Amino acid sequence: MFVIADNLQITRQRVEQAVRERNPDPIRELARQCKECGAQAIDVNAGPLSRQGEEIMRFLVDAVQDACDLPVCLDTVNPRAMEAGLRAARNRPIINGISLQPEKMAGFLPLAQKYDADLIGFLLQPDGHVPRDAETRLTLAVELVGRLEEAGVSRERLVLDPIAAPLLWDDGGRQAVETLETVRLLPDVLGYDVRVMVGLSNLTTGRPPGPHRQLVEQTYLAMLGGAGLRWVLLNIFNPQTVATAQAVGVLGSGGIFAWSF
Amino acid sequence: MFVIADNLQITRQRVEQAVRERNPDPIRELARQCKECGAQAIDVNAGPLSRQGEEIMRFLVDAVQDACDLPVCLDTVNPRAMEAGLRAARNRPIINGISLQPEKMAGFLPLAQKYDADLIGFLLQPDGHVPRDAETRLTLAVELVGRLEEAGVSRERLVLDPIAAPLLWDDGGRQAVETLETVRLLPDVLGYDVRVMVGLSNLTTGRPPGPHRQLVEQTYLAMLGGAGLRWVLLNIFNPQTVATAQAVGVLGSGGIFAWSF
Repeated sequence: MFVIADNLQITRQRVEQAVRERNPDPIRELARQCKECGAQAIDVNAGPLSRQGEEIMRFLVDAVQDACDLPVCLDTVNPRAMEAGLRAARNRPIINGISLQPEKMAGFLPLAQKYDADLIGFLLQPDGHVPRDAETRLTLAVELVGRLEEAGVSRERLVLDPIAAPLLWDDGGRQAVETLETVRLLPDVLGYDVRVMVGLSNLTTGRPPGPHRQLVEQTYLAMLGGAGLRWVLLNIFNPQTVATAQAVGVLGSGGIFAWSF
Repeated sequence: MFVIADNLQITRQRVEQAVRERNPDPIRELARQCKECGAQAIDVNAGPLSRQGEEIMRFLVDAVQDACDLPVCLDTVNPRAMEAGLRAARNRPIINGISLQPEKMAGFLPLAQKYDADLIGFLLQPDGHVPRDAETRLTLAVELVGRLEEAGVSRERLVLDPIAAPLLWDDGGRQAVETLETVRLLPDVLGYDVRVMVGLSNLTTGRPPGPHRQLVEQTYLAMLGGAGLRWVLLNIFNPQTVATAQAVGVLGSGGIFAWSF
């Protein structure tokens, strides 16, 4: 299982202060820690639209790459900041992400065409809402993959995210089932072995840390793995969840079993 | 997820002694403990063929049913002992189990026809070997379901077990993947929402207890749950694994999420 750290977010004080002072050291340190804890890519969340979006994204991507050789997952709704990140990336970066929302298609499809980056495609409605069920998610996936292929984006670059909604939502329990079902059915519906991911931290949003939240997070991640999930975006500083992701990787890959990961 | 305790085995000293002395109290106590720990059925393993097979099975089933109202899962290769258990059962019992092995078909198919019991069907080769891959398991499932339907056994009574092989086997890692794949594909291949189970303790056979074994067991159980597993036979005195089974049940059922189970 390919693990992306979601820890580099400008909303966190340590990151926000480093950006404000344009001091790369805390960002480098954070990137090194992410890699040590098992990250295989680092999500670079440059935050809300900003006049300095391009410069901030470049600063962050440079700092991460000074510290480690992991790919960056460029997480912004600002197409100019996204392009700045794509230009600064030394390894193949990940665009996080596109969807059928018109502003996302207009902003990011040209970048997906121009740069041979990996591309996260969210199964969101064109109005940005989370679909209610698996059937809608699958229909959106067919539409999104079709639009991207028409535009010449290789489907091998695409990673679909069917959205793990917060369990606290009124229909959160039902959503968890629908997302699982979507993961299970996507390869059949699309007719190829599409890579599927979720952002896991979303699931337990609003819940205090503790053994129940931990059990739910690890169990749902492994269930998604059993349904076919290949990538996950998560808090890399939670060693138990990371251990589960690694165990899913071993148990799902059929290699020789090492008993230590 | 429907959880069956595998703790009532005649090979365990406490059980063996109670059987030898025909003292139902330790069996009753064990059954009560199984229920308290979350068991929804109790596997009654009467051990190797014995001249007193029928009497021992009856003794065990009676003792369990004196103590709790859970269904019994009758686990013997002796058809006469099996029938004694079927006669003694007060709730719908489970026959554990049949397969395409000729002696199993000859011994247990008549009992499955005569008693309206649930029936575990192992996806074993006719020679008793564990299949190497998912394709063979699926072929065996089609053959087994066909044979049972021809004989008038309702497919609603059937629970298929694709065998979770020990990870320590030379091809244990590959087997884990093939079993997962089988669980994922069985409903499609059979064309109905067949119940699927595994015996989980088998997976980590030969490994000492510890955090790695625990992580592997919980992760694989949740992966199977994400692939569609509905029943599991496990050590009910392992609270962490039982908690995972219960979390899989909640996360896979789409009910309102209680955050405590």
